[in-house]
Amino acid sequence: MSTPPLPSTTARAAPENLAILLREPFRAMTAELHARLDAAGHGAVRPAHGAVMQFLDDEGTRVSVLAERAQMTKQSMAELVVHLERHGYVERVPDPADRRAKLVRATPRGREVYAIARALVEEITARVEARLGPRRLAELRTLLAELAAAL
Amino acid sequence: MSTPPLPSTTARAAPENLAILLREPFRAMTAELHARLDAAGHGAVRPAHGAVMQFLDDEGTRVSVLAERAQMTKQSMAELVVHLERHGYVERVPDPADRRAKLVRATPRGREVYAIARALVEEITARVEARLGPRRLAELRTLLAELAAAL
Repeated sequence: MSTPPLPSTTARAAPENLAILLREPFRAMTAELHARLDAAGHGAVRPAHGAVMQFLDDEGTRVSVLAERAQMTKQSMAELVVHLERHGYVERVPDPADRRAKLVRATPRGREVYAIARALVEEITARVEARLGPRRLAELRTLLAELAAAL
Repeated sequence: MSTPPLPSTTARAAPENLAILLREPFRAMTAELHARLDAAGHGAVRPAHGAVMQFLDDEGTRVSVLAERAQMTKQSMAELVVHLERHGYVERVPDPADRRAKLVRATPRGREVYAIARALVEEITARVEARLGPRRLAELRTLLAELAAAL
């Protein structure tokens, strides 16, 4: 190439970066979850839809609140919600606080997804505990909570 | 509501969940990065575009590879790339390995975004170190690397 060589400037070139150290295990868990969802017949729930499922309250949540939590535009969030609604994972119900507004809420089929996710997180946690030992796993939890508090 | 009360079933109800402990500090960092990008005139780069910027190699990366890394469909990734290309953050160049294929690569304007992100991660790391102390920050890094290896 004719452009002069540049120092490595992209995020991929900094594996010691704290953000990447957080991202990579989360990404591995996400990949494992979606492989399992796929195997359980929930292949319509793609990793992108985690932005909906992860941020839903039990009683339902407005699209605008979901968008803010997931750091997305309302328009992009609405598209993800439409997909999940079409596949039966969420439904829209009137907001008891404002009948003109709607809440997005998990359906029983959506709760199957949560059950699979919870079971997997338990399995993964057991796997990590087997490797790190209970004391160091507890320390990891403590440090992550302190990290969140420091930000 | 007429539906019977259900046990709390969504991910939001499990703050001790290891995945959430990883996600929350990453999300806080992302929010801070985009506030800073916005203030620096890079408001067109939204958190969603992190899925492109985070996974670009210095020499450029195919859309299909980006999509896989970011756990998205190729179509969704292509839309994010089009937006960033339109705003001057990435460009498409021929792939030296296959001239019919294209690589997405950061432009000088895109590299400004990386510079801001790197500076912020350094600041955040210093802030975290001030709170946790260098020994516990090093332990956090070690534990996160071991967690990634256990997954």
